[in-house]
Amino acid sequence: MRGKLIVISGPSGVGKSTVLKRVMEQYDNLQFSVSATTRPIRPGEVDGVNYIFLNHDQFRQLIEEDQLLEYAEYVGNFYGTPVAPLEKALEEGKDILLDIEVQGALQVRKKFPDAILMFLMAPSLQIVEQRLRNRGDTAPELMKQRIERARWECSQADHYDYIIINETVETAANEVISVITAEKCKTKDRLPMFKED
Amino acid sequence: MRGKLIVISGPSGVGKSTVLKRVMEQYDNLQFSVSATTRPIRPGEVDGVNYIFLNHDQFRQLIEEDQLLEYAEYVGNFYGTPVAPLEKALEEGKDILLDIEVQGALQVRKKFPDAILMFLMAPSLQIVEQRLRNRGDTAPELMKQRIERARWECSQADHYDYIIINETVETAANEVISVITAEKCKTKDRLPMFKED
Repeated sequence: MRGKLIVISGPSGVGKSTVLKRVMEQYDNLQFSVSATTRPIRPGEVDGVNYIFLNHDQFRQLIEEDQLLEYAEYVGNFYGTPVAPLEKALEEGKDILLDIEVQGALQVRKKFPDAILMFLMAPSLQIVEQRLRNRGDTAPELMKQRIERARWECSQADHYDYIIINETVETAANEVISVITAEKCKTKDRLPMFKED
Repeated sequence: MRGKLIVISGPSGVGKSTVLKRVMEQYDNLQFSVSATTRPIRPGEVDGVNYIFLNHDQFRQLIEEDQLLEYAEYVGNFYGTPVAPLEKALEEGKDILLDIEVQGALQVRKKFPDAILMFLMAPSLQIVEQRLRNRGDTAPELMKQRIERARWECSQADHYDYIIINETVETAANEVISVITAEKCKTKDRLPMFKED
């Protein structure tokens, strides 16, 4: 059976990468889609694993050749999803996890109406802002920009199918895995299995 | 938040009671709706726990007073769901599990459009029939009737939201619990939690 395309977004500071790491540990048959980005590589990141790191010219070429499922600009950098490897993996029956921001997620929804869209939230909007402020590694102007951005992102949650609450890493990972499991039990996916009987 | 009404059906012989017992052990906040029935009490069953056992006159009175959410006849006996205790439990935020057959489930869907309908299947239709034949506690004519009934029930699975496959008790219980968990993550249920922020 064709795999599921699972899109997860969430405001900066919500703890998304920790939750997704736990999900990957606990759920088989799931693989990350590796995004392309123009943002600088950070210490500890590996090109081709965390992201495919490109310069602006390389990224523009992917756009012009229509090789991106979606792309978006975030705080001065571009992020996008190369479509060919993703389509191949889905056809092979693998479930693909796409960790992208809101604009990208809404583009995916248009091109893959069956994609499952999840929005990861902290237990409250205040907690999201508090976590961003506590990071302390950011210039005040950029901090303000990020908080504004987080507020806007949370206002877009109503476009998503599911809202996952990051109460704890365990509960949030369990919710994500439950959604994937449940989606695979939907009658439209399962009924064909019994038609051949 | 108002509880979820979860309806589970499945053909006789599919192992439903074993799966539901496991679900009840592993998922809190879930309680069985106790059905009323006119069928004779079986050894080990407790009135008011397994069923509310009624005679035909008593059952008819519930119908006439419109006190049943649904009712149906199955192999000569009536089964039905008293509506008042169910509505009260949902309002208190409890999730209610309704173990009823297909006709009843479709009546519930009409009255509670938000009900979650799951159909429990064996890994194949052949396995359902084999299990019924292997019971060996039934007269041939009644056996034939049950197999016909099971075939018809399976043909109605397309009216359900989810099909749960009883591969093992563990996988089936996990699927049921995942569906309930996922349904509670749906955006329409969760978004109001963030509107007050």
